[in-house]
Amino acid sequence: MTPAADHRSASGARTGAAPADPFGWLTARAEVRRRAGLVRVLRPRAADSAHLDLAGNDYLGLARHPEVTRAAADAALRWGAGSTGSRLVTGSTELHARLEAELAEFCGFEAALVFATGYAANLAAVTALSGPDALIVSDEANHASLIDGCRLARARRLVVPHRDPEAVGKALDGHPGSALVVTDSVFSVDGDAAPLAGLAEVCRTAGAALLVDDAHGLGVLGAGGRGLPASVGLAGAPGVVATVTLSKALGAQGGAVLGPAPVIEHLVNSARTFIFDTGLAPAAVGGALAALRLLRREPERAERARQVASLLHHGVTAAGLVSARPDACVLSVRAPCPESAVRWAADCRVAGVAVGCFRPPSVPDGISRLRLSARADLTDREVARAVDVIAGAAPEGAKALASKAG
Amino acid sequence: MTPAADHRSASGARTGAAPADPFGWLTARAEVRRRAGLVRVLRPRAADSAHLDLAGNDYLGLARHPEVTRAAADAALRWGAGSTGSRLVTGSTELHARLEAELAEFCGFEAALVFATGYAANLAAVTALSGPDALIVSDEANHASLIDGCRLARARRLVVPHRDPEAVGKALDGHPGSALVVTDSVFSVDGDAAPLAGLAEVCRTAGAALLVDDAHGLGVLGAGGRGLPASVGLAGAPGVVATVTLSKALGAQGGAVLGPAPVIEHLVNSARTFIFDTGLAPAAVGGALAALRLLRREPERAERARQVASLLHHGVTAAGLVSARPDACVLSVRAPCPESAVRWAADCRVAGVAVGCFRPPSVPDGISRLRLSARADLTDREVARAVDVIAGAAPEGAKALASKAG
Repeated sequence: MTPAADHRSASGARTGAAPADPFGWLTARAEVRRRAGLVRVLRPRAADSAHLDLAGNDYLGLARHPEVTRAAADAALRWGAGSTGSRLVTGSTELHARLEAELAEFCGFEAALVFATGYAANLAAVTALSGPDALIVSDEANHASLIDGCRLARARRLVVPHRDPEAVGKALDGHPGSALVVTDSVFSVDGDAAPLAGLAEVCRTAGAALLVDDAHGLGVLGAGGRGLPASVGLAGAPGVVATVTLSKALGAQGGAVLGPAPVIEHLVNSARTFIFDTGLAPAAVGGALAALRLLRREPERAERARQVASLLHHGVTAAGLVSARPDACVLSVRAPCPESAVRWAADCRVAGVAVGCFRPPSVPDGISRLRLSARADLTDREVARAVDVIAGAAPEGAKALASKAG
Repeated sequence: MTPAADHRSASGARTGAAPADPFGWLTARAEVRRRAGLVRVLRPRAADSAHLDLAGNDYLGLARHPEVTRAAADAALRWGAGSTGSRLVTGSTELHARLEAELAEFCGFEAALVFATGYAANLAAVTALSGPDALIVSDEANHASLIDGCRLARARRLVVPHRDPEAVGKALDGHPGSALVVTDSVFSVDGDAAPLAGLAEVCRTAGAALLVDDAHGLGVLGAGGRGLPASVGLAGAPGVVATVTLSKALGAQGGAVLGPAPVIEHLVNSARTFIFDTGLAPAAVGGALAALRLLRREPERAERARQVASLLHHGVTAAGLVSARPDACVLSVRAPCPESAVRWAADCRVAGVAVGCFRPPSVPDGISRLRLSARADLTDREVARAVDVIAGAAPEGAKALASKAG
């Protein structure tokens, strides 16, 4: 149902009757959602919840770590509740500069630029590093923010099969101008990692740039959580740019682009989501900086996060459910349909375990899933309890999926 | 210079020579900027500056108000440094819900939805309320985030002359499907207000929806700072949606969409920058909520902000400079060229007054300007000092512009 078609049928504006309700078409849209079992409702949470949280992206358990929250609070008190303007006007504080320097150094890139969100960082990187004459080659399972970046770039776009360096190489072959290959490092639905070394190789051959969204890799993969590019020797490599979020493993808010200094200078001068947006609030900057320092001091957090993911995966597959092997902290468990996924997640919640529920349009293949995320601060006992609850609440269909897949 | 053209000339990748530097084309871009006097450099500021700030967007002086920073700090300590997930998963706290309820009530709309940035709120509102079959009619001076929203919407777009309801009416005339008229309430370069009543009238006639970005209106215009839609009786009107920022008058970070409940429900279910982005950090939510409550208690702040803008305007025009009459807190003073604007702003800074400097591509008409913003907490004496500094540092050309304009 399109707004246009719906508008025509639901209103009399074009035939001289009562004035149309410009939002009349939303009623039919809501009805379509309801019938498909795809209604999303906000469920605001309390500050103190007894739930075991496997739904958030706080992979290292730092969002509520006293050092991190104290640093966020101190930054608000010292620098203000907001940054008061664009990063180019009054929105850059010395705290932003410090975070950028330490983030670049930690991840192994020459320079970094902090954005108000990870979404904004991806829009900026894709648009500023391509352009109308460029070719963008994009994995079919990339995050929405990368896809929107491709759309905004107005470049020629080729969407290639998931995790397929050969297809990327073919797409690049013979393109006469500049080209940008864009990929998630860890894909947000199934938690599988991109074949970065292979992608870098085809990019090198073709003279193309490689943009890696390491949102789910930073803090989890690589030595001490330095991220997937670092773990395969691509951090700081010519032609390689990474984006990260400050809102997952670093427990705060915001995003950043990491790359060669000329790329960062180019973004400062041309990225619309950098120039025309208010700078990240000091509390988020301070919180992310404290989390980064904590991770440097306690690198074992990254390893524990991966270990918890592995434990969760073994637990649910041993219980007969379908879950791909996680390459980082994200894993998903397949559900028979959107309605059963919603019920399953609700039953887990009643039993004290919060899990995510991914349904269309948030899943590229249309398959609904429970979405679990591992956290470094979960004990083995908590993991076992979570597995028991998830397996105990599983709809019959979920195990049938398993036998079919097997 | 396009990346493609530049890439071809700067690299030998296509002729079998040394591998291309995928970012080689950035060197030429940087050189073009340098020659045009358009290089932007980040200048991180200290926490305690003696400068008189006319550059930020902290219109009510609340970003560093103790009540607001204390609330931001308390929120970080109580709820965490980040929201830990999408608003649809773990990123909605009871604090978000409270802010949404109070913001909707204050501005006179049925419902509100908070986003991580104002940019994200605009992308969401434009894309979710239009679509491939819709027509979007957009003022030529609209903010970058509205323009990007139009691009992402993949709708038919018509850009109309600045502040021209008649042109909007003509653009809407005869369009058979749903239509969305998009405008800033106060335009961010010259600070002039949109003719909202006239726009609403042509929208009503055509059955079109009206989306108003009240980023520079909230906290400044309308009774007690309720915004421009409220001041012309459009708050809560059928077919009217507003977006606001939490990062200007409310001194924090984030944005919100305000409108009928079915519109908000539709955004929750379909807006990509809502679904696929981490929720706004608790500190920003808490800071904005405290600022909103403070404004409700001290409505005179809005009036004082407008008064300061008027004093600034009278001061600079009396000194022979060119500045349009400000409708809110934003005003600009024309400069002869980008280089002189940069020098002028730098000279003001040396004399203790921080002002913004807008150059292409941040100005739609290509005219460089000093950009001043009024603040409710400036004294008459501070305003007079600012005017003295700005007039004293003015390049000869700035006054020549005035006599030409006169």
